[in-house]
Amino acid sequence: MSNTRIVADSTVEFAIYLADQARLVSLPGFRKDVQIVEKNDLSPVTEIDRSVESFVRGMVEKTYPSHGFLGEEFGSLNLDAEELWVVDPIDGTRSFITGWPIWGTLLAKLRNGSPEIGLIDMPAIRERWLGICGKGCTFEDRSGVKQDCRVSSCETLAQARFYTTNILYFEPADRAKIEILLQTAAVPRFGGDCYSYGLLASGHVDLVVEAKLEPYDYFALIPVVESAGGIITDWSGNTLHQGSDGRVIAAATPQLHAAALEILQQI
Amino acid sequence: MSNTRIVADSTVEFAIYLADQARLVSLPGFRKDVQIVEKNDLSPVTEIDRSVESFVRGMVEKTYPSHGFLGEEFGSLNLDAEELWVVDPIDGTRSFITGWPIWGTLLAKLRNGSPEIGLIDMPAIRERWLGICGKGCTFEDRSGVKQDCRVSSCETLAQARFYTTNILYFEPADRAKIEILLQTAAVPRFGGDCYSYGLLASGHVDLVVEAKLEPYDYFALIPVVESAGGIITDWSGNTLHQGSDGRVIAAATPQLHAAALEILQQI
Repeated sequence: MSNTRIVADSTVEFAIYLADQARLVSLPGFRKDVQIVEKNDLSPVTEIDRSVESFVRGMVEKTYPSHGFLGEEFGSLNLDAEELWVVDPIDGTRSFITGWPIWGTLLAKLRNGSPEIGLIDMPAIRERWLGICGKGCTFEDRSGVKQDCRVSSCETLAQARFYTTNILYFEPADRAKIEILLQTAAVPRFGGDCYSYGLLASGHVDLVVEAKLEPYDYFALIPVVESAGGIITDWSGNTLHQGSDGRVIAAATPQLHAAALEILQQI
Repeated sequence: MSNTRIVADSTVEFAIYLADQARLVSLPGFRKDVQIVEKNDLSPVTEIDRSVESFVRGMVEKTYPSHGFLGEEFGSLNLDAEELWVVDPIDGTRSFITGWPIWGTLLAKLRNGSPEIGLIDMPAIRERWLGICGKGCTFEDRSGVKQDCRVSSCETLAQARFYTTNILYFEPADRAKIEILLQTAAVPRFGGDCYSYGLLASGHVDLVVEAKLEPYDYFALIPVVESAGGIITDWSGNTLHQGSDGRVIAAATPQLHAAALEILQQI
């Protein structure tokens, strides 16, 4: 349904501009001695997370005063606006603070609650996925070469290359299900954050399952995965929305999605 | 002791040349449709692993006919030679086959069983660590800029940024100890393979603990970690050698090393 909408070129260009400029804010702090603060949920945040989000929020407010904004660090602004920008300034802060180059900046633009532009930018390794409803998903490599993305044709768990960020993030009951997936999948892997979903869009990974994601974590992933032909839902198979419970599954094919859901829905 | 030996410049230059050339063999196969075979230990190997090792082995045989060679895929040659080259063509094959760019080529040169040159090369992200006994450790970034490496000053588990590749790789008794470390460390992280040891040498990571490593996995790490001021041993605190049991710990400081060993040595 969302694929029939027309996304304005100007907002796509603005999203790309935001990502380009955000790199200039985040990269100078990578592998440098930056201040780290522990948040209420015990997750770390750096001054770089805050600088990136402030920058993006300021640009959105200035360029589109009528649009809303939702960010990880400073909360929301005009959440009921028809057009809403959602930003995770540094997805993978734990990677960022350990010198690990797989961290990303996530940008999404929603219309009436539905994400129509999603951008996964990986500043440290100069890679980027851009998904636009109705226009497909492109991957841009370190050299600036762009290619269309298409998910794999993997239909079974036994053949699946499966990523989940960190088994410690799951509650015990969920963890038991993840262990089954890890033991069943052809190639089980940890780590990834947003990057796993980009790899899924590009056909290198077949299944990603996570929990405790926030709207600023998953909104950008949806256009990337869906416009590359994949499926991304909650663990009940429902579309992700602002009030989802943070449990996310992305799969290359409906068959693989169904096979994984069968395990995730066991009581 | 090993730091007092003099390492010939020509062998260092040869190691760098090998790594440069090996990139030309491995990179064209990354994110391409390569043939994957499951080995007896159920770990995957690709045609690229084999091509890289054949290339390096051929170069060593041609350049230093009297030297020995030990590789992951094709076994050893003249293992009793005074000078021995040790190669892991693709460390992180599971990363390689899932499009994940954190995989490396490991090269070590041993003299009388002791590694004196260690090279961790990361072709897909164009990063490289080179450790030489008595000469220190350098990191070369994507732009070719080189900088001296120095481990962090972290002395406690509670402050440690801790990496281990995959909790599924541990036997149950070992896994319980790793879980304690994961729960105690300031920043526990999965994933990494050889890359974690490079990050440790550069001061971004404080502790790495793994099991089931083979000589071709750990020999290259030793000069990198030690010449950056860190410590790398087995779980009994002994120097790693050809017959070690594959359980490896690397730490930034003696204090952190001792604190982690205390947990790893619990019965």
